[in-house]
Amino acid sequence: MKIESTQNERVKRARELLNNKGRKNTGLHFIEGERLVREAVVSGATIVEAFLEEGHDLMAAVLEGSGAKVYTVNRAVMEKLTATNTPQWVCATVKTEKNDLPQYYPSGLIVVLDCVQDPGNLGTIIRTADAMGAVGVILGEGCADPYAPKPIRSAMGSIYHLAIWQTDNLLDEIKKLYAQDFSLICGHLNGGSTLPEIKTKCAVVIGNEGNGVSDSVADLCTKYRLPMYGFAESLNASVAAGIMIYETASIMNGKSR
Amino acid sequence: MKIESTQNERVKRARELLNNKGRKNTGLHFIEGERLVREAVVSGATIVEAFLEEGHDLMAAVLEGSGAKVYTVNRAVMEKLTATNTPQWVCATVKTEKNDLPQYYPSGLIVVLDCVQDPGNLGTIIRTADAMGAVGVILGEGCADPYAPKPIRSAMGSIYHLAIWQTDNLLDEIKKLYAQDFSLICGHLNGGSTLPEIKTKCAVVIGNEGNGVSDSVADLCTKYRLPMYGFAESLNASVAAGIMIYETASIMNGKSR
Repeated sequence: MKIESTQNERVKRARELLNNKGRKNTGLHFIEGERLVREAVVSGATIVEAFLEEGHDLMAAVLEGSGAKVYTVNRAVMEKLTATNTPQWVCATVKTEKNDLPQYYPSGLIVVLDCVQDPGNLGTIIRTADAMGAVGVILGEGCADPYAPKPIRSAMGSIYHLAIWQTDNLLDEIKKLYAQDFSLICGHLNGGSTLPEIKTKCAVVIGNEGNGVSDSVADLCTKYRLPMYGFAESLNASVAAGIMIYETASIMNGKSR
Repeated sequence: MKIESTQNERVKRARELLNNKGRKNTGLHFIEGERLVREAVVSGATIVEAFLEEGHDLMAAVLEGSGAKVYTVNRAVMEKLTATNTPQWVCATVKTEKNDLPQYYPSGLIVVLDCVQDPGNLGTIIRTADAMGAVGVILGEGCADPYAPKPIRSAMGSIYHLAIWQTDNLLDEIKKLYAQDFSLICGHLNGGSTLPEIKTKCAVVIGNEGNGVSDSVADLCTKYRLPMYGFAESLNASVAAGIMIYETASIMNGKSR
C-alpha cells in the first residue's frame, strides 16, 4: 500500500513513538535504517508496520514474510517519519518485548544499570554487554528508556539480542541475584583494585554518570575501583562500564593476557 | 572591562574559534565552563581572553593573575559567545600549544590515532589516554580537530594534561616509534586474541571508526583482536579504544587481575 501524504494517520502514529508517552500507550517502538531493521527481522522481533521508499522489493518481501504490514512512501513522508536529519530508506514500528522479571536468573553474565540516565550511554552499554556475551541487562528505576530513538541507535540492534529486564525496585532484584549466588560487582571510588574470584554467575552493576551506584545497592556488591594511572580523575561512563564488563567477561571466559 | 553588546568585536572573534578556519588563523581555541577553565589555568595553558558574568570575583582574579585579559559580560553576550544551549558563566580563548614532533619519543604509553573522525570519540579517547597515564597522543592526517568544541568537551581538560602531537604523515611517526623500540599494537579483525609482551615503551594505534587502522600502519604493528563473546559484531569505537588502552596500561603497570 502507498502512503503519499505526510498527514496520513499511520505516519502520525509512528511519529508518536519518538515520545515516551507514545511508546507506553502502544507497547511499540520505532527503528530506522536498513541495518537495524534487518537485525530486528533476523532476531525474531515482531515488526508491526514497515515504511519503505520505492525500489527495495527484496526488503519489502522479507518484511511481508515476517508478518509486517508494508507501506511504500515517498521522500517527504520518510523525512516526516524519521527523527534523523538524513533519513534512510526504511523504518518500522516494532513490538516492545516485555520480559517478566525472572524468578530465577539464568547463569552467566548479567549487566545491571542503576540510574544510567544518558540515552547514548545506555545504548552503548547494552551494545557492550551484548558483545561480551551477557545473557541480559537489568534496568532499574531512573534509567533512560532503552526504546527511545537515541539508545536504540547506540545499541545498534543489541536490544534484540539479550533479555532486557526493567524493574521499579532494583534493590529487590539485587537481593534476588545475591540469594541466587551471583557474584555482584560494582564500580566504586572506595573499592579495591583487583576483581574478586568470579563464578559462572556474575552481575556487574553500572551506576549513575554523576553519582555512581546507590549506597543500598553498593552495600551488597564487591566494590571495584578501576585502576587509573594518569591525571584525568574519571573516565567517560560508557568507557568505564565497557572496561568493567570486558574484564569480567574475560575472567569468566578464562582469557589470559 | 565590560562588554555589553553582542556585536562587540571581541565577541565576534571569539565566536570564530568555533570554526576550523578561525582556529587555524589565530592559533587559539575556545573553552567554556568553570571546570574546563579551571583545568586550563591549573595545567598552565595560556589563557588569552576570559569572559565572565558578574559575581565571580575570585575566578576573575585567578584569571587575571594568570595573565588573561578579563571581560565582564551580561547573559545575552554569554549566550552569543557559547556554542551550548545552556551556557555556563565563564568561557575563554586559549593559546593552542603546538608540540613539535619529537625526534625521540619519551618512554611510556603513547596513543596513536589513525583517522579517528568522530569529534566525540576523539575527545573521549584522549580522556581515556590521560586517565591511563599516556605521555602523549599522536594524531595522524584525517583525524578530527582536537581543539573543536565537541572534542574539547569530551576530553574534559585532558587536552592540557598530555602532549598532543599532530602530523600529516602518520606512517613516518609509526616508523620512528618502531625504530625507537616501541611495542606497536593495533586493533585489527585479523589479529590474535592475546597481547604481546609489552615493554616500557608502547604505542597503541586506534583506527578509523568504519575502516579501522590503515594497512600500511597495521603492517608495522602487532595486530590484536579484542576478544568478544556475544552477538554484537563490534563495539562502540570509544569503548573498544578504551579497553585496549586500559589493557595495555594494566600490563605496563604490572596489574594482576
